[in-house]
Amino acid sequence: MTSFPSVPTFDAVRRWYAAGADMEEGLAELARRIRRESAPGVWISLVSEQDVRARARLLKEKSASLDAPDLAERYPLFGIPFAVKDNMDVAGMETTAACPAYSYKAEKTAFVVQKLLDAGAVLMGKTNLDQFATGLVGVRSPYGACPCSFNAAYISGGSSSGSAHAVARGLVSFSLGTDTAGSIRVPAALNNLIGLKPSRGLLSSSGVVPACPSLDCVSILALTSEDAADVFRTADAPDPDDIWSRTVPKRTSVEKTGPFTFGIPDTLDFLGNTAWEKAWEKAVEDMCAIGGRCMTIRYAPYKEAADMLYFGPYMAERTAVLGDFIRSHAEDCVPVVRDIILGAGRWSAEETFRTLYRARELRRMTTADFEHMDLLLLPTVPTTYTIEEVRRDPMTTNVNMSRYTNFMNILDLCAVSVPAAIARMPGTHADLPFGVTMAAPAFSEKSLLSLASRLHTFVQKRGLPLGACLQ
Amino acid sequence: MTSFPSVPTFDAVRRWYAAGADMEEGLAELARRIRRESAPGVWISLVSEQDVRARARLLKEKSASLDAPDLAERYPLFGIPFAVKDNMDVAGMETTAACPAYSYKAEKTAFVVQKLLDAGAVLMGKTNLDQFATGLVGVRSPYGACPCSFNAAYISGGSSSGSAHAVARGLVSFSLGTDTAGSIRVPAALNNLIGLKPSRGLLSSSGVVPACPSLDCVSILALTSEDAADVFRTADAPDPDDIWSRTVPKRTSVEKTGPFTFGIPDTLDFLGNTAWEKAWEKAVEDMCAIGGRCMTIRYAPYKEAADMLYFGPYMAERTAVLGDFIRSHAEDCVPVVRDIILGAGRWSAEETFRTLYRARELRRMTTADFEHMDLLLLPTVPTTYTIEEVRRDPMTTNVNMSRYTNFMNILDLCAVSVPAAIARMPGTHADLPFGVTMAAPAFSEKSLLSLASRLHTFVQKRGLPLGACLQ
Repeated sequence: MTSFPSVPTFDAVRRWYAAGADMEEGLAELARRIRRESAPGVWISLVSEQDVRARARLLKEKSASLDAPDLAERYPLFGIPFAVKDNMDVAGMETTAACPAYSYKAEKTAFVVQKLLDAGAVLMGKTNLDQFATGLVGVRSPYGACPCSFNAAYISGGSSSGSAHAVARGLVSFSLGTDTAGSIRVPAALNNLIGLKPSRGLLSSSGVVPACPSLDCVSILALTSEDAADVFRTADAPDPDDIWSRTVPKRTSVEKTGPFTFGIPDTLDFLGNTAWEKAWEKAVEDMCAIGGRCMTIRYAPYKEAADMLYFGPYMAERTAVLGDFIRSHAEDCVPVVRDIILGAGRWSAEETFRTLYRARELRRMTTADFEHMDLLLLPTVPTTYTIEEVRRDPMTTNVNMSRYTNFMNILDLCAVSVPAAIARMPGTHADLPFGVTMAAPAFSEKSLLSLASRLHTFVQKRGLPLGACLQ
Repeated sequence: MTSFPSVPTFDAVRRWYAAGADMEEGLAELARRIRRESAPGVWISLVSEQDVRARARLLKEKSASLDAPDLAERYPLFGIPFAVKDNMDVAGMETTAACPAYSYKAEKTAFVVQKLLDAGAVLMGKTNLDQFATGLVGVRSPYGACPCSFNAAYISGGSSSGSAHAVARGLVSFSLGTDTAGSIRVPAALNNLIGLKPSRGLLSSSGVVPACPSLDCVSILALTSEDAADVFRTADAPDPDDIWSRTVPKRTSVEKTGPFTFGIPDTLDFLGNTAWEKAWEKAVEDMCAIGGRCMTIRYAPYKEAADMLYFGPYMAERTAVLGDFIRSHAEDCVPVVRDIILGAGRWSAEETFRTLYRARELRRMTTADFEHMDLLLLPTVPTTYTIEEVRRDPMTTNVNMSRYTNFMNILDLCAVSVPAAIARMPGTHADLPFGVTMAAPAFSEKSLLSLASRLHTFVQKRGLPLGACLQ
């Protein structure tokens, strides 16, 4: 029998099973491969090979009487291996949020993780992250800096660093993370993946360690947009226990076929990264080639919202949920994370409300843009850094990574980062992936994912691989 | 010709016009009556008789070619006189918010007021209020304490004090005010009126002086629930310029016919007012008599939300919108209002977010109650006070008035206060109106107003008059 697919898209895994491969042996082999091949800094805990086998046997038993259509209906993610960021609870496993002093053994599995398990997905482990999901670099963890799957000198991006690395290397078919300021989209872009940050409130946050609760979004990393769509469909369910839960209004978005209009900012800054500036220009051309009409929009209100998240009272959301712990465990935290979270103590209630009002005004202004365009296109990140560069200047590098991602939850947009190119960093021998983000108002997942698929298919035809997998 | 109806329900005014009365002369007579009969402390500014006449002539001209059905369609509030609280802009008139130093001449008419004017309603003047809509007593104004329409020694309730007094006395057919903590419902109850506080965001707040923006609701006072419904239908429109604007979701509420279930709190305190305690018990009986099944609900979460508004960071919303003015005009403000608004400076961003999260939790808990009941029934206010009593202890009396009204916007409920009885205050010769509040989740206006109409019709049959009008 051949081994588990090295590029484990859902389609590849399903075809492999359909061809007669044994799920238990395949997943057990994958569990061994994860242990053998994973770079340091990717995982925080792994499900044992024995437990993976037991889970596979249970799935086989439960599904034994089902024919193929019934199986697909009852277990849409049958035998698909996945990972979750270690700020999400899995019953019986530790949740660390990358802070050993904070960790606890979870009694109940997080709502969305349970949805995936119920659908037949098989959990392989829990991944590394910037501590308390506070960071976009993947370096801020006592479990080690998670490297980029393309070049270990570079950052994976964060905070869902390990989740991205594991998918890009084909160690799992998809993973979950959280995305407040860009924590899925940034590592998706830096690891050549699809990163879907759904609308706020669609994927339940029950059983997920909060960071900035009003903006946190459980989010998805996958090799293809079709796979991300499958996971989203499975995980999207109203949760009466989640105070942030929302349901998609009746007028849902539909798959976008035919011509479309996309907006690009009137100003962009790649911070000197000429390779990615060129890749961006090519991506805009590609968007036109697949049927897009390009228009320019005034970027100032988006920029203002971006500054709002990192330099205003919103930071106090982190203090509200984590301040008590951090104040009493200052020495147990990554210093830069601790200083950021406790630094928000200076903001007042008055300033907070003014900020919340202004956020609503900006939302109104930017929502109006989408009357004229189907999506906003942006570089997901303007540039990237080596792990060493981030260590030398952890604040500036992090803020730079957030530039084109961190306003989206404030403006109530959903977004998907799409692989666009692999380009050589100027003055180096490093070939690194570049991604673009498609964004649209809340509840546009379906139309965004269909456009992501069109662009992704187009660039794959030019030779762009899936993730960092061996093809 | 008979004079303008002394009990000017919309129906009475329409019938009077239909019988051949001249609108211009009728409204001019009303303008004179307002000047002659109004108690001190009700109005801040009046539209001149000349301007009322000009407006009436213009309406007549515009409508000259319309037959009766077209007229009702095009001008649903044709010739209906109304007043607005003086925190709402009317182009060319001063907006004072009951603070002369704050006042400005408005250039544009508030969105909702314009809707009413466009529908043919005729503005008669702008009414007194607790300064900056901060108060539930009607005493906190440099334009004088507004008296109760039933007994001038007692408070009208506030902050929409003059708006309630004017409708109760039949000086206008309806009025607008604002309601954050009870500012329409409290004076409605104390003046024997229907007071509709719609769901947040349905009536635009454009052109209205903000108090606590995330919770402020433009609201309606009328003699009957049918009239309130007419005004609501006319004023309810999405406003793209209002950051708080919401639209009723597809699943709208419907008129409630037949049996229904209402909840009452497991604890109530009338602060020693035995007359109103009896009136409350009678109102519960009346609700059963009109088809209601009574159930008891746990009141603790509602109580917690009530305490949240007056004793927590929400007060800083007032500081956020008015703090700059008040800090620079401390001597120009009513001291108790100034102290309340500036007192919120002590709250932090961290405490604010914690409060906002808890508010969401309480909303989730209380929303669940409404799966078992059509409405929550409460006394609108537990007791009332003389103007003198409020002057002696402005804080405690005000907080007591808020007890059963001030959590509703935090919990995203809509509510209508309904006249229930007139009862003699213990130990006095004062006969004062008692009202009950029906509350239900946002967007339940139609079902609430239909139930309000049933109760109101029932108590009218027992002899309860409309407002304080001469019958």
